[in-house]
Amino acid sequence: MIKTATLKGFRDFLPAAALTRQLVTAKIRSVFEQFGFDPLETPALEYEETLLGKYGAEADKLLYLFKDNGGRKVGLRYDQTVPLSRVIAQYQNDLPLPFKRYQIQPVWRAENTQKGRYREFLQCDIDTVGTQSPLADAEIIDCVLTIAKILSLPKPLMILNDRTIFDTLACTKTEIIILDKLEKIGKDEVVSQLKSAGRTNPEKLLDTLKNVKPTERLWKIIEALKRLGYKEDVDFRFDPFLARGLDYYTSTIFELKIPAYAAGSVAGGGRYDNLIGTFTGKNIPAVGVAFGFDRLIDALGELQLIRTQKTATTVLVCIFSGETLGFSLELTATLRGKGIPTEIYLDDTSKLEKQLKYADRKGIPYVVIAGPDEVSKKVVKLKNMLSKSQEDISVDALIDKLTRTS
Amino acid sequence: MIKTATLKGFRDFLPAAALTRQLVTAKIRSVFEQFGFDPLETPALEYEETLLGKYGAEADKLLYLFKDNGGRKVGLRYDQTVPLSRVIAQYQNDLPLPFKRYQIQPVWRAENTQKGRYREFLQCDIDTVGTQSPLADAEIIDCVLTIAKILSLPKPLMILNDRTIFDTLACTKTEIIILDKLEKIGKDEVVSQLKSAGRTNPEKLLDTLKNVKPTERLWKIIEALKRLGYKEDVDFRFDPFLARGLDYYTSTIFELKIPAYAAGSVAGGGRYDNLIGTFTGKNIPAVGVAFGFDRLIDALGELQLIRTQKTATTVLVCIFSGETLGFSLELTATLRGKGIPTEIYLDDTSKLEKQLKYADRKGIPYVVIAGPDEVSKKVVKLKNMLSKSQEDISVDALIDKLTRTS
Repeated sequence: MIKTATLKGFRDFLPAAALTRQLVTAKIRSVFEQFGFDPLETPALEYEETLLGKYGAEADKLLYLFKDNGGRKVGLRYDQTVPLSRVIAQYQNDLPLPFKRYQIQPVWRAENTQKGRYREFLQCDIDTVGTQSPLADAEIIDCVLTIAKILSLPKPLMILNDRTIFDTLACTKTEIIILDKLEKIGKDEVVSQLKSAGRTNPEKLLDTLKNVKPTERLWKIIEALKRLGYKEDVDFRFDPFLARGLDYYTSTIFELKIPAYAAGSVAGGGRYDNLIGTFTGKNIPAVGVAFGFDRLIDALGELQLIRTQKTATTVLVCIFSGETLGFSLELTATLRGKGIPTEIYLDDTSKLEKQLKYADRKGIPYVVIAGPDEVSKKVVKLKNMLSKSQEDISVDALIDKLTRTS
Repeated sequence: MIKTATLKGFRDFLPAAALTRQLVTAKIRSVFEQFGFDPLETPALEYEETLLGKYGAEADKLLYLFKDNGGRKVGLRYDQTVPLSRVIAQYQNDLPLPFKRYQIQPVWRAENTQKGRYREFLQCDIDTVGTQSPLADAEIIDCVLTIAKILSLPKPLMILNDRTIFDTLACTKTEIIILDKLEKIGKDEVVSQLKSAGRTNPEKLLDTLKNVKPTERLWKIIEALKRLGYKEDVDFRFDPFLARGLDYYTSTIFELKIPAYAAGSVAGGGRYDNLIGTFTGKNIPAVGVAFGFDRLIDALGELQLIRTQKTATTVLVCIFSGETLGFSLELTATLRGKGIPTEIYLDDTSKLEKQLKYADRKGIPYVVIAGPDEVSKKVVKLKNMLSKSQEDISVDALIDKLTRTS
């Protein structure tokens, strides 16, 4: 027998999970388009050189790299920012700037797995390429907050900072990493770690940071957000301790927090004005955000904000007997033609009891039975599988009722 | 500078192409769900053993196989039937049979590339697992014909056959391959090739095949299709020469032809009652179909059945000056709130001319300008970028107009 196992860190999404994911991506996609972002799709495989260009050779342990049958060194997409940068470089003449794109595709990371960390996961990104305008930063923040609202996430709060603040305070990378942990490990521990890292007066650094003012760029972003109706300290907050890792961000950085969801931020991003230049040879500024899709799904589940459906099907049309098969087929076609997701039981010799049990196991909410009695009276029997109630109903009334519940 | 090239056989889909693909997959997905198929998603990577189980070791040249960082032999998904079979075996107790699933994911094949053949391409599959009922076969054929109709493909014709017919005529695999080419190479060439293959009386075989009657299973399928309103020789046709390769089909086979599109069938499938058993250890019958998504897109383009959009955005809100920026921001938020895909020009210092040129290059159909004059009169200037006409219009009327065109 053939091996039947899913690789560690990879997942199968059976109908209930796949339906939830589809519902959420559709909502995200729709907001992305409302905000004027257009879709981009790039291949799963890229040249190794393209992938390593950004992360450096030490990252190769995190990448799925291999040689293809033609001996080319290739690898699986690790994020969507490198493919975007490659696309910008490759199609410069076809893409009017600013180029605003969204990308919803899986990425692969050969990392150790742990709760909530997978080797294949979906990323939902938007990026605006080719402008330094703070309006672009504000727009992306607005878009993320709009998605949080549409998904009914409670009290979404956007934390903002500007990386250039750390530069003006002459913070080293190590120090920034320590500062970022303030909320998690507390002031005393931060002070102690800063001391060990060689900072002579860590308390002073903390005080200075605490009282630092937003940069000019942040002021403009905050102004735009206020103009859009967002409230400071309710919808967004400047936090000079936010660091967001250390890779390619150059100024604005932000993270979306859901206070009721402890596991961490569900979206994060910032401005990266130098990265694309490593692909194009000339600097092209950019700002973007990535949703942690799995965390989002996890948060929606934990906060009970999503109704899980076992099936997309609304109704099962039973087959009473071989004689009424034709009627059942026609009824099925009629319902489908009205856009109602409809199954017909696929065996005209099965007992009705077995057919009802199938609907029950599959989680189909309604069942329709049309025996010779009903057919002669031009009605069908509609059974609600949840309440167990049933009624005789005309086909027109059936369509009306099921259209409202589909 | 970092390498910027797309791998041979792989493709980037810039917004116009990505939008078309998205539109078509959404339509297909919607019909799949109307027919009671639920979504399934499986990982890009599978154990090599799982992939090679079906195709055999000689297929390894067609597969992207490699060792992951943990030394596991893995490979990229080659089709969606093997993952489906694995899922059926792995989750037998959670999946009520018949299990009807659709799967719309990319697959990877390390084949030589040629026109219309890629190394990464999207497959759109439906399969019904766990029933031998001819109704299941008819339903899948009905679903394919419905999609053809919804996509406005002209005169879609489903060609049907039953592989068991070849068995009753004691045809060898080689002979079946030759017979399948009748339409392409003509009768004389088929006779000659059959002779070379060792058939003693090829003319007789051709005559017998030509006059063979549909099997009992085909009759039942045809009966169901007629009951659903499909017409023989118009919507479907029995063709005893159809062979559909030689792999795992056991009885019903079918292909969708679009006579006006010469490049070949856009969908094909059949019944495979033995394959899943190689994963589960007990036979589980199944029937399914795969859409050749790229051919479908190609056909829709060639037959001019799809309107290419350069962007999903309906309107660009220009920024007249820094003073009116606030009004433009609010207007943008209002339009987006109404579900209208809206861009705001992301630089409040650019000349109006530059903003209009951006809309033009991006293919945004409408532009809105609100200068101090308009703001004071509580109107905006709406410019149609195609007709170049413009009008002063209230915000309510603007929403109304753009909602109708979005």
